[in-house]
Amino acid sequence: MPVTTTRRWVRRITRGGQAADQPGQVADRRTDDVVVEQPLSLALQTPQGAQVLVTTMRTPGHDLELAAGWLVSETGMRDRQSISAMGLFTADRDAVHDDDSSDAVDTVRIALAEDVPPPVARGFMTTSSCGVCSAAALPNMHHSDVLGQTPTFTVNVSTLFALVDHLTQQQPVFQRTGGVHAAALATTNGKILMTREDIGRHNAADKVIGWALLEHHLPLTDHLLVMSSRISYEIVQKALQAGCAGIVAVSAASSLAIDVAREHGLFLAGMVRPGSANVYSREDLLLVD
Amino acid sequence: MPVTTTRRWVRRITRGGQAADQPGQVADRRTDDVVVEQPLSLALQTPQGAQVLVTTMRTPGHDLELAAGWLVSETGMRDRQSISAMGLFTADRDAVHDDDSSDAVDTVRIALAEDVPPPVARGFMTTSSCGVCSAAALPNMHHSDVLGQTPTFTVNVSTLFALVDHLTQQQPVFQRTGGVHAAALATTNGKILMTREDIGRHNAADKVIGWALLEHHLPLTDHLLVMSSRISYEIVQKALQAGCAGIVAVSAASSLAIDVAREHGLFLAGMVRPGSANVYSREDLLLVD
Repeated sequence: MPVTTTRRWVRRITRGGQAADQPGQVADRRTDDVVVEQPLSLALQTPQGAQVLVTTMRTPGHDLELAAGWLVSETGMRDRQSISAMGLFTADRDAVHDDDSSDAVDTVRIALAEDVPPPVARGFMTTSSCGVCSAAALPNMHHSDVLGQTPTFTVNVSTLFALVDHLTQQQPVFQRTGGVHAAALATTNGKILMTREDIGRHNAADKVIGWALLEHHLPLTDHLLVMSSRISYEIVQKALQAGCAGIVAVSAASSLAIDVAREHGLFLAGMVRPGSANVYSREDLLLVD
Repeated sequence: MPVTTTRRWVRRITRGGQAADQPGQVADRRTDDVVVEQPLSLALQTPQGAQVLVTTMRTPGHDLELAAGWLVSETGMRDRQSISAMGLFTADRDAVHDDDSSDAVDTVRIALAEDVPPPVARGFMTTSSCGVCSAAALPNMHHSDVLGQTPTFTVNVSTLFALVDHLTQQQPVFQRTGGVHAAALATTNGKILMTREDIGRHNAADKVIGWALLEHHLPLTDHLLVMSSRISYEIVQKALQAGCAGIVAVSAASSLAIDVAREHGLFLAGMVRPGSANVYSREDLLLVD
């Protein structure tokens, strides 16, 4: 297992009451669990050597999934065969053979199949027009070829709450550190397939989507992306690129996330808390049970 | 005022009990406040025309501050005079004269003074060695020329709690939408100077740092950056670039954030909640009151 949490000395301060003017007390030093944050570069293997596409700050572990998910999110890749090889390397350029064997990994090298055009690291630099917000600066989004069709699924109301309950129970790093996000992949009838945690919510989403690519599960027509976080435009974009049926999230959705989800027919539920939830898009798919 | 919140139709679902198998109820449709998310491009005015440096998803408003703060964070700019002019433009390339007059703004154009080298949008693409984590991929960070010196300030324990209390009270968009982060700038003796909210915590930090640049307050030697969020490496980097004395945050800090703060002598407190707080770095500056 890679090191996802570590310990640091902290000086703990306590305050008896909750009044702002109440004096505090400085307790002894203690060690505290914190989430590990380390840079990871994704590099494309080319005849001229490895070219860095992007560097992200991530929690170590499942780095091959993170790389695969990034390719789905940023280039619209849907086929496992588009990747001919991937390898893990340390800062000293040593190859590491097992994804879970080392947190010294700082690069994933990617070799693409011959017929796959090399991805261009877009960041947010591509300029194309967005039909939803009229902005000229949104990145070009691959329209899902799946979601345009009539959905073949429904989402039970009880499933929404159960998914978030289960996600919360499957966050060991969060429970130790309070410092990470989680993403999960579930079937539309409520079965969670797998869960990933990361300091970045975008990374957590990429890791579950990358897992799906590597397991030949794309497009995720009958699957929901479950997120512990808020839902911004970029998370909706990732779900659409992977062909997801919908998103279920613990926190709020932004205006653009809602608008883009509606434009593409993506089911979107947010603020899913123990007592209530909001469905922002595709409420026609809800089934009361 | 730009539009920072808007309303969307949602279908509200309620659940009587908290058991996962408890049936839910679909309530009527209602409108709900959501935070506005829109793209903003920062473009450099050059003899060849405007060149986009970066596009970020942000909550509209204080866009000139966001641009200025990005220049501080990404290029180490410290001097207001380095910017000869900034202008707001809509997607139709119309100039907008007032930062707060329009949420149609989608670009800030920046003209630099003649002696200022043009910034290179680094994203995370620059490669240089990091002394803290041994990674080869961290962006090159400008070392603060202020924090190497002996600090001239202390931080009262009561100030930590008061700052977070005040920040929480100054989050009107969060209280309406639950979907944004806030950043504030405070003096080391606890006076909050200003607060900004944004869907992105990096943007919120850039807005307060950009305000400080435009108001000729850099370096922020006697000031604390107060954040509603978790603290990752990038937030520490922004504080260091602005010459801040320290960071006070509501949530957890990552391993790398702690290590880099310690290396640079930055005061860092996190998990500042009503009853307790953690001081991760420079506990020698704490003063019990």
